[in-house]
Amino acid sequence: MSFHHLGIATADGADLAATFEGLLGAPVVHEESVDGMTVRFLELDGGYFELLEPRAEGTIARYLDRHGPGIHHVALATDDVASALDRARDLGIDPVDEAPRPGAWGHEVAFLHPDSTGGVLVEFVAAGGHGSNRTV
Amino acid sequence: MSFHHLGIATADGADLAATFEGLLGAPVVHEESVDGMTVRFLELDGGYFELLEPRAEGTIARYLDRHGPGIHHVALATDDVASALDRARDLGIDPVDEAPRPGAWGHEVAFLHPDSTGGVLVEFVAAGGHGSNRTV
Repeated sequence: MSFHHLGIATADGADLAATFEGLLGAPVVHEESVDGMTVRFLELDGGYFELLEPRAEGTIARYLDRHGPGIHHVALATDDVASALDRARDLGIDPVDEAPRPGAWGHEVAFLHPDSTGGVLVEFVAAGGHGSNRTV
Repeated sequence: MSFHHLGIATADGADLAATFEGLLGAPVVHEESVDGMTVRFLELDGGYFELLEPRAEGTIARYLDRHGPGIHHVALATDDVASALDRARDLGIDPVDEAPRPGAWGHEVAFLHPDSTGGVLVEFVAAGGHGSNRTV
């Protein structure tokens, strides 16, 4: 499976995007509002940073309250999210999402419970078509 | 700049490595003892997970005490760590390491203060030669 992106919780996505573009040469290649958040994808060679900025109460707003800003999850690319979930269940790892669901940028996604993966929040993502709807 | 690895703090690196190998098909490709830790690199397509298991008091042992297990840092590959540090300073970002230093797996590395990068602990790594000393 391959690295796809690192999800980062932030209270100021525009400011952090500017910092990472200057520091890493990672431009914003997609921005959208989804699930009460502004989501920005920054492109690295071989992957993305996904900046998650809450605009309303929800998972990321609660995460910021409890933990402060920083790395929230890691997403691994797969052609078949449903099969990846089956493999997780076979290993005794509990999914957060029992079936693939729509995520940001037209992705099909599913998350696993971090208690089963060493405190690491793992997302599976099928990202085949995302280049077709770049909006920045 | 390109994604290189995700550093993950864990109290049981062997167990977590087995979980990620089963879940992600990411085998251990390097293991060593360094700085009071057992460090295991697991290979993904296009990057690595670096499992950091403390064997003595130190940064990662303190991290586990304070935060529990999980994602600790993200490492970006560059040919020139010193220049990347200069660019960080130009942007007003404080380095933890004022100059490149030896890291695990023969890498040259330097970390930045997460307060300047949205709570994300960023490592620069020059990893050109690491394939030559695989020990697993």
